[in-house]
Amino acid sequence: MSNTKTTYENLKSFTIKVLRALGYSDEQAEVTARVLVEADVRGVPSHGVARLSFYQANMKGGFAFPEGMPEIVHETPLSLVVDGNNGIGPHIAEFTMKRVVEKAQKVGAGFGAVRNSNHYGMAGIWAEMATDEGFIGMSFCNTRKCSIPTFGKERILGTNPVCFAIPAAGKTHFMLDMATTTVAHGKIEVYERRDLDMPIGWAVDEDGRDTTDTSHFQELFRSDQPEGGHLFLGGASEALGGHKGYGMGLFVDLLCAGMSMGAWSRDTFTGTGSGITHFFSAIRTDLFGNEKEIAAHVEGILQQVRDSDKAPGNDRIYIHGEKEAEKREELMRDGITLDDATVKLLHNYADQFGIEKLL
Amino acid sequence: MSNTKTTYENLKSFTIKVLRALGYSDEQAEVTARVLVEADVRGVPSHGVARLSFYQANMKGGFAFPEGMPEIVHETPLSLVVDGNNGIGPHIAEFTMKRVVEKAQKVGAGFGAVRNSNHYGMAGIWAEMATDEGFIGMSFCNTRKCSIPTFGKERILGTNPVCFAIPAAGKTHFMLDMATTTVAHGKIEVYERRDLDMPIGWAVDEDGRDTTDTSHFQELFRSDQPEGGHLFLGGASEALGGHKGYGMGLFVDLLCAGMSMGAWSRDTFTGTGSGITHFFSAIRTDLFGNEKEIAAHVEGILQQVRDSDKAPGNDRIYIHGEKEAEKREELMRDGITLDDATVKLLHNYADQFGIEKLL
Repeated sequence: MSNTKTTYENLKSFTIKVLRALGYSDEQAEVTARVLVEADVRGVPSHGVARLSFYQANMKGGFAFPEGMPEIVHETPLSLVVDGNNGIGPHIAEFTMKRVVEKAQKVGAGFGAVRNSNHYGMAGIWAEMATDEGFIGMSFCNTRKCSIPTFGKERILGTNPVCFAIPAAGKTHFMLDMATTTVAHGKIEVYERRDLDMPIGWAVDEDGRDTTDTSHFQELFRSDQPEGGHLFLGGASEALGGHKGYGMGLFVDLLCAGMSMGAWSRDTFTGTGSGITHFFSAIRTDLFGNEKEIAAHVEGILQQVRDSDKAPGNDRIYIHGEKEAEKREELMRDGITLDDATVKLLHNYADQFGIEKLL
Repeated sequence: MSNTKTTYENLKSFTIKVLRALGYSDEQAEVTARVLVEADVRGVPSHGVARLSFYQANMKGGFAFPEGMPEIVHETPLSLVVDGNNGIGPHIAEFTMKRVVEKAQKVGAGFGAVRNSNHYGMAGIWAEMATDEGFIGMSFCNTRKCSIPTFGKERILGTNPVCFAIPAAGKTHFMLDMATTTVAHGKIEVYERRDLDMPIGWAVDEDGRDTTDTSHFQELFRSDQPEGGHLFLGGASEALGGHKGYGMGLFVDLLCAGMSMGAWSRDTFTGTGSGITHFFSAIRTDLFGNEKEIAAHVEGILQQVRDSDKAPGNDRIYIHGEKEAEKREELMRDGITLDDATVKLLHNYADQFGIEKLL
């Protein structure tokens, strides 16, 4: 439908107005709108402006507050620890990552741990602030509890995303931005809407057994009953490496919650403030020699990966970050198409806050 | 069989004698023997003294040389790049990680990239040098090409192990030490010896299709034909997250080969020297506050994970590193039992080099 197509700038300025109306400052609204629209323009609508309803629900639930401003509670030449004071995630993340990158510029590397934050958008947005400077970037976040450890059945960890990013001399940097669970929850919601069974390896039921029953799983997931949840990459068994994915997810919580002395996934969304935690790093590549030669060597490896033999029915081997970068180029040129539910959400905000309709 | 049981010290001193007879110096032999025996005593015989035959084959093949001494080719207060000059891996890795840890002691963090090295044993041995000091440790290594990217069919990447280690106040640190492929090659060899089909998700055949045919796969794998190989964690499809495991494996090659300006997996074992590369880091946890409070908070999270509900038929949820630490305690007390093939190998070395038999 042609009337669901908008531009990056229009979507962003509309989103800023909604966030301002929700009580956030110009600065908080600007960075949050940018982060959400960047997800839409990169073809990741699960992290896009549709999240405004989640942001609003977090305010209503007492998990996020416009007056929550990031505060540095510990600092060294290489590092800082930030208390987000339950503000809005992207504002807290940008505050921290900006200083992490500045530290890397000055001394070679920077690390930031954050407690009492909120949803920070795509993990890659923050690692990219490092690759934009030619540095290695990493970004980690815990989330609401939804996933289970190997041999467990209780939801105690989050989807716990990571981004590992390495600068390359080609068109796009290497940007591995992933949930450590097999899939993000949005993917299960898509299966629910389409009334489809899930593949084995996504989730277990209340008895800790592999399940394909999407609607039963979603009932469990929305209930207070603590059992049944997402599986980590590799699934339920050690045979396919589920203990490795679980290890990656646990590593994320130990870095984010551990280093910030904040809440781990199981303890998020249980009191005032969601308690979400983050961890960031930036590492200069000229710690290892000439940064241009290194970026060219990295690109040389990536090109040989792209050029390697394809499996039948495939004509391309992707490098992580390429799909999103190409989608961004396309949608910046052709416009962003929003789905009906998102259009309805934005129309409701327009009505509620007296903002001129986007479409 | 009681005559296949030995002690840590006896196995180590025998292994030192073999390595000395192969031409390695006291120092090279000591660290290499220690690293191999540590794997046996932790219940990871795939990385244990049975590897001596591989070390010897690498010398015969022109991939490893006793005269190869590690050399620092680039250095900053935070970092060093080492050229291993095709020496023995554990000696080069220890040389580098020792300096990485010293840098972390002095300035807060240390990073080391290594080129022209060789097999360095378990990845965790090196990350543990950081956790022994109370620091976060990371260790990465590329390997001989054996694995394929998502949508590919050509062996171009390695098993590319990682270790992420975080100090905890309890009995053991968190030590996630894993191949980024679904399984290490040793596991497929076990299935071959037992004449068993592999599970879907371990490997693809020459057409890039999922295969369970272990013996056909092993034929392919040992041939010069470049197609067919290990799958990364998550398997062949995007549905179960194979692109995530592939991303982790590629990240390892970009860190190790990229930052050291060394060979990536596909180019290893193709000239003089295997060209294997490593990457290490150590990060002080007091960059983020009081290191004792942080280690106690980390342990608190781990204990809650251990205490969470178990799936039916399971009475324990493991933390990464616990199995190995407990096995070490047991075998240090009760002795190390070697399998028949390893005993035979060691007897052959005793005969060949005129060393007193171990057993």
